[in-house]
Amino acid sequence: MKSSAIGIDVGGTTVKIGLFHTENGAIIDKWEIPTRRENGGEKILPDIAASIKEKMKEYSVEPDEVEGAGVGVPGAVLKSTIVNRCVNLGWGVVNVGEELSGLLYGVPVKVGNDANVAALGEMWKGGGMGFTNLVMVTLGTGVGGGIILDGKIIEGTFGAAGEIGHIMVNPHETEVCNCGKRGCLEQYASATGIARLARKKLAETDIPSILRNIENPTAKDIFDAAKDGDGLAKDLVEQLGRILGRALSFVSSVVDPEVFVIGGGVSKAGDILIDVIEKYYRQDAFHASRETKFALATLGNDAGIYGAVKMIL
Amino acid sequence: MKSSAIGIDVGGTTVKIGLFHTENGAIIDKWEIPTRRENGGEKILPDIAASIKEKMKEYSVEPDEVEGAGVGVPGAVLKSTIVNRCVNLGWGVVNVGEELSGLLYGVPVKVGNDANVAALGEMWKGGGMGFTNLVMVTLGTGVGGGIILDGKIIEGTFGAAGEIGHIMVNPHETEVCNCGKRGCLEQYASATGIARLARKKLAETDIPSILRNIENPTAKDIFDAAKDGDGLAKDLVEQLGRILGRALSFVSSVVDPEVFVIGGGVSKAGDILIDVIEKYYRQDAFHASRETKFALATLGNDAGIYGAVKMIL
Repeated sequence: MKSSAIGIDVGGTTVKIGLFHTENGAIIDKWEIPTRRENGGEKILPDIAASIKEKMKEYSVEPDEVEGAGVGVPGAVLKSTIVNRCVNLGWGVVNVGEELSGLLYGVPVKVGNDANVAALGEMWKGGGMGFTNLVMVTLGTGVGGGIILDGKIIEGTFGAAGEIGHIMVNPHETEVCNCGKRGCLEQYASATGIARLARKKLAETDIPSILRNIENPTAKDIFDAAKDGDGLAKDLVEQLGRILGRALSFVSSVVDPEVFVIGGGVSKAGDILIDVIEKYYRQDAFHASRETKFALATLGNDAGIYGAVKMIL
Repeated sequence: MKSSAIGIDVGGTTVKIGLFHTENGAIIDKWEIPTRRENGGEKILPDIAASIKEKMKEYSVEPDEVEGAGVGVPGAVLKSTIVNRCVNLGWGVVNVGEELSGLLYGVPVKVGNDANVAALGEMWKGGGMGFTNLVMVTLGTGVGGGIILDGKIIEGTFGAAGEIGHIMVNPHETEVCNCGKRGCLEQYASATGIARLARKKLAETDIPSILRNIENPTAKDIFDAAKDGDGLAKDLVEQLGRILGRALSFVSSVVDPEVFVIGGGVSKAGDILIDVIEKYYRQDAFHASRETKFALATLGNDAGIYGAVKMIL
């Protein structure tokens, strides 16, 4: 194995990049560059390559010392290289593996969906350490999922494995999800979904709540209020647990993982979140899978670069 | 590779056994023996071994010409060898792989859950030929499922991967499923579940139907009536499609397979069943996975022995 490797996490606003020691997976340096999405995102890969080459010079890393680069992108990925439409980056169908390799001394490049890659990162160095069969659930602006079986990312036929945010949990929903369907998990369990449910409950009832003193309460406000004993906020947390616990029981009936790792901004709520998901999960899960473990993600925004580099190690 | 291999499908009433050519997977002979469940099923494995030894003599197959034996059992299996309680056979925790190998000249033995093993059989020689990522759904007395990714069975942490019959599809159900939960897919989409819904609908409404002339209509009666244009029966088939299509959309959000292979007694209804499942699946699936294929299983009761032998080839 060569001495260095690169992990890249491409987001809609910034690209996070890490230079790693291959031997122990330690970070030599990590940094960010802006994501230039103009003109169909044509600058993104050249920008990444230029930035990495500069760092390699800074650390005197020669091209033949680089094992390869892993890339996480916010879209569906096929065959660990082709990105099939990436709205957030302006990309259509792009062979990211081939293009970036060409720009980067021909080193091997592997590409994965960002939620899947984060799951791999958490398995390797985060909340899922010690496990090889895990499902990561990212509760952020949306709800993402990553399925790892036997230490490897499950990509899916259409790159859509782990898209658990779009499991349909409420056939009676009237509002439309970003994906065009109605009643997706994401509409209830994302940060925006939790805030939406709070607005609804505040408007539809007269229940007193400290949330009424806050203009547009966020998911964080709701968890803080619940921790302070606010009844309405506690009800909202229970509702979230019921919906999410049930959806994860579906996931267990398919892949029966060792552990669910819960990450994303909403997971900063901590144990209160894990506890309520677990409670409802155990009610709905098939008896054999009732003892599935739950853990919080620990790598935060670095999960992507860790997972990306792990793909090529 | 040695010249012969053995596939075994252990059911609650009979054990199906096949002797195969390893070269092309052709069956040399297949036969059945009764399953003796008395005394905690202690006779089952010795009976199987004795029967195989007899056939080996008949076909002059020497022990050193046998590549191994694969076994499908109606229960959860861990590490391809340990059966963790098998109510239908009277078994507790049994290391089937080790015990049967000991009884059978020490040939390698691999064990799998019967629904998973049938899925592997259909992939190899049946309705899933040409695919390596498939989900098989068995609609019989219960609803079973088998997940195959990259040509391999997904077993799950607790041997419960693919237990899609126990996905909770109706939180308002009052009757109890065999598993102890309420509202499982199996309560609606198994042969018994379909008949149950028909009884309910016949009792609760006055809608005229040819099913009223049949005492305790079966799933087959209902599909036959629907094919003949019976309105109530057609409604029941639509209801089945809606429930099953939605549940399979959940499965796609987890593993995003290439194809769903539908088997079991209910699947004898044929295209009418596939069509109605597909229709509702496409409504509920995440956009990327809407083009998943659907196929009927073709191996019938032989899926188990084919899949069992495939495990060791």
